[in-house]
Amino acid sequence: MNQTIETILRHRSIRKFTEQPLSEEQLSAILDSAIAASSSSFIQCVSIIRVTESDKRESLAEYAGGQPYVATAAEFLVFCADYHRHKQIHPEAKLGFTEQTLIASVDAALMAQNAMVAAESMGLGGVYIGGIRNNPAEVSELLSLPHHVFPLFGLCLGFPAQDPERKPRLPRELIVHQDEYQQDLDRNLLAEYDNQVREYYRTRTGGNKNTSWSEQITATLDKEARPFIKAFINEKGFSLK
Amino acid sequence: MNQTIETILRHRSIRKFTEQPLSEEQLSAILDSAIAASSSSFIQCVSIIRVTESDKRESLAEYAGGQPYVATAAEFLVFCADYHRHKQIHPEAKLGFTEQTLIASVDAALMAQNAMVAAESMGLGGVYIGGIRNNPAEVSELLSLPHHVFPLFGLCLGFPAQDPERKPRLPRELIVHQDEYQQDLDRNLLAEYDNQVREYYRTRTGGNKNTSWSEQITATLDKEARPFIKAFINEKGFSLK
Repeated sequence: MNQTIETILRHRSIRKFTEQPLSEEQLSAILDSAIAASSSSFIQCVSIIRVTESDKRESLAEYAGGQPYVATAAEFLVFCADYHRHKQIHPEAKLGFTEQTLIASVDAALMAQNAMVAAESMGLGGVYIGGIRNNPAEVSELLSLPHHVFPLFGLCLGFPAQDPERKPRLPRELIVHQDEYQQDLDRNLLAEYDNQVREYYRTRTGGNKNTSWSEQITATLDKEARPFIKAFINEKGFSLK
Repeated sequence: MNQTIETILRHRSIRKFTEQPLSEEQLSAILDSAIAASSSSFIQCVSIIRVTESDKRESLAEYAGGQPYVATAAEFLVFCADYHRHKQIHPEAKLGFTEQTLIASVDAALMAQNAMVAAESMGLGGVYIGGIRNNPAEVSELLSLPHHVFPLFGLCLGFPAQDPERKPRLPRELIVHQDEYQQDLDRNLLAEYDNQVREYYRTRTGGNKNTSWSEQITATLDKEARPFIKAFINEKGFSLK
């Protein structure tokens, strides 16, 4: 196993950071890494807003549902789906297709994961902030996002001030299928995994949280998933057709 | 700059592979790397279909619009949005939200980029295959994808049998904005970049292709972007609300 793979396998989300800023070299390496990712059909429909103003950071921390590290991390990057550039270059561009939303979401995440791995390879840490989709209109206004642009997720980066355990993922056998989708869930493997997750939370919270993965996703999927997102991205000119 | 960042910055899509298969260790490292990525709200709504049967590979190469490397690469992985697992665990799960499509698209790409970087760090190469969305229903049937699962993109991996140039990306100044979106496109920077892209294609094709980025995206966005995708994912239970 090489250093890159070790870096990737060691990933934990970091939510506590020291006050140390990133060096110019570190920030450059992270942004250049993001930009080096593949782009579907060479469309390049992603923009990154680097937020440095502390009042904007405070607002974003609140919009994200009260996540203080959005305000305190050394860096906060907002990854956006962006066809505004294309519209300026080609005003008659055919936009609004669901396919274009998929391309932007995938490409933004390819870029972001390059940024995350590059940061982690330098001893930095980070966490993705999907919470900015709690208040997407407010986030868009704060960052002056025009039509044909919407905020997908944020990324906090900085020097870690915590050393959390790795969170156990679903076992490979449940995620990777060979040649065709295995429809029957292996309930034994799932039960084993559920115990692992329960143990992880117990250890991490000193016994306060005691939830299996199945229990957690059941609670999550009992609620509607940001039901306002469809109308929001439609209004921004996405997924209309 | 460390080895990980060098690996990331050296990325080129590889479309020609030797016949050498991956070792078990390499494949394991790649799949474990994919699984180590962040998962939005710990939902874990991604499945990977590893396609090894050569007749399925041939069909996928054709469905992807005639991309022979889909058949010939050592490995071909199909990344799918997947809430079927959740539905089995919690039959009353509230599904069909656009938000859940975004989560799946982002999480699948985070996983895939970990796989790509892990592969590249071992001297392997790869290319993403968005082309499987040309015939998503056929791909779904071939891989027996149930309701609440749809194929997002493929990833070819193998030992490179070519050494292409890096394709120039939009300059950082056009992708990264500070504190607010810069609505006015820097036309000078764009013109410079357009020339770079034109030069890249000229060199690569011995003068046969002579297209700037602006010309290329204009041609792409003159066409409808897979207009059938919306109905397809709706039918699979995605982005209904």
